[in-house]
Amino acid sequence: MIDLIFLGTGSAVPLSHRNLSGTALLRKGEIFLFDCGEGTQMQFRRAGLKPSKLRYVFISHFHGDHLFGLPGLLTSLQMANLRQVVHLFGPKGIAEYIRFHQDLCNFGFDYVLHIHEIDEHTPATLWQTSEFHIEWQPMQHRLFTLGFALSEAPRPGKFDVQRADALGVPNGPERGKLQNGESVMLANDAQIHPHQVLGPPRAGVKIAYCIDTSPCAGQEQLARNADALIADSTFPASEQVWAHQTGHSTTTDAAEVAKRCGVQQLFLTHFSGTVGPADLPSLVEEARVIFPNAIAATDLARFKILPKL
Amino acid sequence: MIDLIFLGTGSAVPLSHRNLSGTALLRKGEIFLFDCGEGTQMQFRRAGLKPSKLRYVFISHFHGDHLFGLPGLLTSLQMANLRQVVHLFGPKGIAEYIRFHQDLCNFGFDYVLHIHEIDEHTPATLWQTSEFHIEWQPMQHRLFTLGFALSEAPRPGKFDVQRADALGVPNGPERGKLQNGESVMLANDAQIHPHQVLGPPRAGVKIAYCIDTSPCAGQEQLARNADALIADSTFPASEQVWAHQTGHSTTTDAAEVAKRCGVQQLFLTHFSGTVGPADLPSLVEEARVIFPNAIAATDLARFKILPKL
Repeated sequence: MIDLIFLGTGSAVPLSHRNLSGTALLRKGEIFLFDCGEGTQMQFRRAGLKPSKLRYVFISHFHGDHLFGLPGLLTSLQMANLRQVVHLFGPKGIAEYIRFHQDLCNFGFDYVLHIHEIDEHTPATLWQTSEFHIEWQPMQHRLFTLGFALSEAPRPGKFDVQRADALGVPNGPERGKLQNGESVMLANDAQIHPHQVLGPPRAGVKIAYCIDTSPCAGQEQLARNADALIADSTFPASEQVWAHQTGHSTTTDAAEVAKRCGVQQLFLTHFSGTVGPADLPSLVEEARVIFPNAIAATDLARFKILPKL
Repeated sequence: MIDLIFLGTGSAVPLSHRNLSGTALLRKGEIFLFDCGEGTQMQFRRAGLKPSKLRYVFISHFHGDHLFGLPGLLTSLQMANLRQVVHLFGPKGIAEYIRFHQDLCNFGFDYVLHIHEIDEHTPATLWQTSEFHIEWQPMQHRLFTLGFALSEAPRPGKFDVQRADALGVPNGPERGKLQNGESVMLANDAQIHPHQVLGPPRAGVKIAYCIDTSPCAGQEQLARNADALIADSTFPASEQVWAHQTGHSTTTDAAEVAKRCGVQQLFLTHFSGTVGPADLPSLVEEARVIFPNAIAATDLARFKILPKL
C-alpha cells in the first residue's frame, strides 16, 4: 500500500486554492516527491509530511511551476539539521541548477544529496531495490520532460492455512519462514517448500506520474497496468487542439490512456488556471464517460493506493 | 498615506502560520515589494494585491528566504500578459540570477524589467521622482545586505481659507492653483503668492526597511525620523549574543534604534522559527519597555502609515 498525497494540482500560475506541481508518495515511511513547484515545502508541512522522511525527489522538467520550490526545500532540510540521504533525479542541468544556488547564496549540505542527471541516453530503470524500482520515459512537451513510474516487486502469495494444516506444518516459526520464501524441515523429516503453501505471487503497487505531456508512447509505457495514473489533465476536452499545441492533455486524453493501458485508478491533475473549483465536476464527468474510475485531484487530498487483489 | 502589508514575517524556514520574507507598500496605486521569499507571489494574491500594480521590487540580499520567490513572481507576471514596467533593485549578481533562470527555463519577458544592480559604490539615492525617493544603506549581516527607505517629498502646506478670504481670492480655480504652488493675479491686479495662503510644507511619509542586520550605522541612517521602521527582530532580548553573531537583531535592539532615531512606529518582524505565535506578546513587551509604539507583524497584517501632523 502506498499513500498518494497531492501537494499542488495547478499549472503555470498559483491560485488561492491551488498550488503549483508537487505530488508525494509515502511508502513504508519513505517519501518520494514528484516535482517541486514554488510553495511545495509549505504544502509538504501542511500535509503533515515529515521532511526527515524525504528520500527521493524527481523533477520532470525545467519549467518553473515544477522546479522553483527545489532550492528552498533543499536549504530547509539543511537548516533542520537533518542527516538523511536524499536522491534527486532530474533532467541534465539539474546539478548546475543546484550548484548555481549554492554558489550565489553560499550554502552547503551536511546531509547527503545524490544528484542523478537524466538525458535521452539514460536507461529506463533509474533506481532498483529489492522492494521496488523506478523507471522513466520521455514525455511529449515543449522541452525535454520526464515521466516516472514506481513499481513494487511482486509480493509472496497468500498463505494457505488449510493446505499447511494438511501437510502437518505446525503453528510456529515454520509458517513465518515459508511465508518469507524459505523451505522448512518438519519433525517427521518431511521437507516443505513455499510453493506448497503459498498462492501465486501477488502484484505490488505501480504508480505512474505523467505530467506536462500530450498523449505519447512514453506515457503509455509508464501507465501500462498501473494501479494509479497521475495524469496531465490541464484542459477540458473542448480545448484539445490548444492542449496538444502546448504539450498538454485534456480530460479525455487522460481517460483514453487509462483505458488503453489497463489502469486501475486515474487521477486528473495539473489544471489550468482557467479551470475553477466549480469546473472540476464537469471535467471529471468528461473523463468518466471513457474511464469510470477517474478522480480530480485537489490540493492536500490523500489517497491509499492498494495492489490489485 | 502609504499602506504597509506584511506578506511573510518569518526567517529561514517557513512555518504553517508564517511565510518567508516579503513586505509590500502600496502608494497611490503603485506597489513596492521588499524581498521575495518563496511563496511571496501566493501571499501577494492572498493579500488582494494586484500583480499589475507592481512597479518596484527590492531584494535585500542573497539568502533564499529573501530571494527564492523571485523567479516565480517574475514568470507569473509574464504569464498574466502584463505589460507594465517593473524596476528590480538588488545586490550585484541579481541580473545573472534572473538570466540563469531565463536560460534554464527558456523564458523571456514581454513586460519591461529594468534591473538595477547595487554594490558598495552605488550612490545612496537609488531612485528619485518628484513625489518620492528611495535610498539604500549597507546592513550588518553575514553577506552584502541592503536596507532601504522610501521617503515622500514634502507636500504643500494646508490652505488657509480665512487668509484667502481676507486677501480677496475668489472661490474658483485660483484657489486650486495656489494650492498647487502657482501664483495668481486677481481681478483687481493684485498678485497673490502661494506662501500667503498656505501653511508650512507638510512632511511626506518615510518608511525604512532594515531586515537581516545587527544594529549598525546604515540602519540608523535609514531609520532617522521614519514614520515606520520595519526592523529585524529575529530573536528575543535574551538571545542577543547569538543574534549579533548571526547578523541579526533582538526586540530590544530594534526598540533602541527606533528610540534613538525618532521613529513614529516600530514594526518587529523576521521572527525566528523558534518564536511561536504565543511568544509574540512577550516579545512586543520587551520592545515596548524601551519604545512604546511597537507592533509585532503577522502575515497579511495591514497598516496605514500616515505622515506626521
